[in-house]
Amino acid sequence: MTTLEIMKRAKAEAHSAVPDEQKRNDALEQMADALIEHTDEILAANRKDCEASKDSLSSVMMDRLQLSKERIEGMAKGVRDVAKLPDPLGRVLHSRTLPNGLEVQRISVPMGVIAIIYESRPNVTSDAAALALKAGSAVILRSGRNAWESANAIVTAMQEGLVKAGLSKNRIQLVEDRSRESAKELMHGNGFIDLLIPRGGAGLIKATVEEATVPCIETGTGICHVYVDEDADEEMALNIIENAKTSRPSVCNAEEVLLVHRSKLASFLPKLKTRLTNRSQPVELRLDEACAQVIEGTPASEADFDTEFLDYILAVKALDCLEEAIHHINTHGTHHSDAIITASAEHAKQFTDLIDSACVYVNASTRFTDGGEFGLGCEMGISTQKLHARGPMGLEELCTSKYVILGNGQIR
Amino acid sequence: MTTLEIMKRAKAEAHSAVPDEQKRNDALEQMADALIEHTDEILAANRKDCEASKDSLSSVMMDRLQLSKERIEGMAKGVRDVAKLPDPLGRVLHSRTLPNGLEVQRISVPMGVIAIIYESRPNVTSDAAALALKAGSAVILRSGRNAWESANAIVTAMQEGLVKAGLSKNRIQLVEDRSRESAKELMHGNGFIDLLIPRGGAGLIKATVEEATVPCIETGTGICHVYVDEDADEEMALNIIENAKTSRPSVCNAEEVLLVHRSKLASFLPKLKTRLTNRSQPVELRLDEACAQVIEGTPASEADFDTEFLDYILAVKALDCLEEAIHHINTHGTHHSDAIITASAEHAKQFTDLIDSACVYVNASTRFTDGGEFGLGCEMGISTQKLHARGPMGLEELCTSKYVILGNGQIR
Repeated sequence: MTTLEIMKRAKAEAHSAVPDEQKRNDALEQMADALIEHTDEILAANRKDCEASKDSLSSVMMDRLQLSKERIEGMAKGVRDVAKLPDPLGRVLHSRTLPNGLEVQRISVPMGVIAIIYESRPNVTSDAAALALKAGSAVILRSGRNAWESANAIVTAMQEGLVKAGLSKNRIQLVEDRSRESAKELMHGNGFIDLLIPRGGAGLIKATVEEATVPCIETGTGICHVYVDEDADEEMALNIIENAKTSRPSVCNAEEVLLVHRSKLASFLPKLKTRLTNRSQPVELRLDEACAQVIEGTPASEADFDTEFLDYILAVKALDCLEEAIHHINTHGTHHSDAIITASAEHAKQFTDLIDSACVYVNASTRFTDGGEFGLGCEMGISTQKLHARGPMGLEELCTSKYVILGNGQIR
Repeated sequence: MTTLEIMKRAKAEAHSAVPDEQKRNDALEQMADALIEHTDEILAANRKDCEASKDSLSSVMMDRLQLSKERIEGMAKGVRDVAKLPDPLGRVLHSRTLPNGLEVQRISVPMGVIAIIYESRPNVTSDAAALALKAGSAVILRSGRNAWESANAIVTAMQEGLVKAGLSKNRIQLVEDRSRESAKELMHGNGFIDLLIPRGGAGLIKATVEEATVPCIETGTGICHVYVDEDADEEMALNIIENAKTSRPSVCNAEEVLLVHRSKLASFLPKLKTRLTNRSQPVELRLDEACAQVIEGTPASEADFDTEFLDYILAVKALDCLEEAIHHINTHGTHHSDAIITASAEHAKQFTDLIDSACVYVNASTRFTDGGEFGLGCEMGISTQKLHARGPMGLEELCTSKYVILGNGQIR
């Protein structure tokens, strides 16, 4: 099927009546059942993907691509978890009766058609489909080429679940054209696509935001900072930095840059070096000149302070004051998640007021930026833009609203 | 000053501390005073604009451009009205304490830098500046060439007010470059512009949405429908249609297309013709074939059902059923404001559920779509998109949010 045809079918589906909560939840359960039932087919398709990619993908990427019985069970559980979340639709966001008797209500309604362009993680296929279905939208999935066979087997199973629950399989569709052209068609699908979400590396996100003429949400890139203030508790700082940098370096909420108040360098940096390098997976420290005079490490280049390493690497810079830290973060960061370690309530307030990021932390690890951790129950990526959604996007952020105005003949 | 320099100054201003509510309200009062004090300069600048445009603008456009002492007083009053609105900043939108003791709050904060590209209405200059200032953002105004001298005099006065209130004049800046190039610089001002709002005709809006790589909100184009259902009260329908079409045909919430249930044609159309044509300013009826068999009028072309006339013209079409009306509106409308006239609660529900528009009316005129009418106190245009803002945009929609997370050493 052409991508245009897929978009038309999705739009037609979005213009039909929204299935009620019970029906959407039934469908999610059926989809989860179908994923389990078709485990063999999904694994066979995944083997094709892995075989085709074995010479071109890094071991980290291969690990992301590869499915197992356990991973498919995890996907099915994820789909069932979405069924348990509260319904985001039909909430009355505002309600007013005007003096002339008009009743004006703003109500949460489905976005319509949500398209997701993603890379080679097969589990995004089921996660994104489940969230979009629960939010009442039709979803178009455009998987990376490396994971297409897996995505196709997953979508085929989920469509079977939809049909068993009495819904149209057009609610969840996979783009068939695996060339770059199909991604562009989605980016320019004005009139068909109500929301486009790119999920993947910085290159994909940048290309999408620049090329797209449909509304889209920028997600994910995280050059996250921790700033150690002059009166920070050093032990707390070490714990937070170690956690933010090493607990999962490949994710967007991991720390990439450490800023240290100049008065702290002599006492703190040697402890930092011990903590981050005496471990089974040591962290490479890239140091500015002032830091390099205190401890040994790799000399930092300017570019190191504008890089999302996603690796066991930490750029370290000395600063004179809080204001300098705020300025550095606002100009070099990606407005994702940034933290201050301080004992001063005043400095904490200044930091949270002035840092222009989705999530601003005081005395805690940046790794908490996550829909699950924040209590949203799920997540469709982390928005680093300011329109519509900022920070972890849950079901609410996948919906829009509509004014419904009830009258009995009112004119203006 | 170059447009880049203006964007840099605005961003630097947006990264400084947000003035508290009292200070922002003082500034608005000072701005209003300054507009009154500088009435003579503003009128002199406006005369230059009018003189330069007298051969190129239509009389409607000239009327929009021309200022008077009364209009400037109206602008000043508009600015003072914004001061009286509740502060949109610092509202706690969500608050949770996680089991590990982390306090997670989502707080409303300024957007940062808001840019407005508009055409030749000088009053947009003061309206937009006042709303953006109240919402805590720095604003960049890009006036149409025809109104540039007026806009410059207005901005100069308002900047004087800002400085008197102790704020930087960089909070409100006018783009000096009057060529098209400056609009493009704003559209591609990534890193500087947090929100771009085009205000004007359909051409400007379409060009901005297609060209912009910064987040922008689509406003305004309104092909609004009224659907007269089979059991509609005909007198009510006539009142609503006359109001929606003729009370102010040049605005986006005016009706452009009338859809009539086929069973109504014989009784309703003759009354419609009498009501809309026996008046000092008659409405031209453009009729589809079925309607033309009942009353006289201009034959409608297909394009008439996809046109925002903004004039005393109404396209009229006969339909077989509610479903056909819903399909027509969803495919030919602009998702702005659409109404059903019906006595059936079931049809009303079906209509409000399925019409994919910002504002869906039952038995009332589409002309109510307006921030003031809806009780928002003000309006920065009407969003016809689904991301971030839908329908009239008030102060809340000019803000974004931020997560602030307070801990005492928590790690994940």
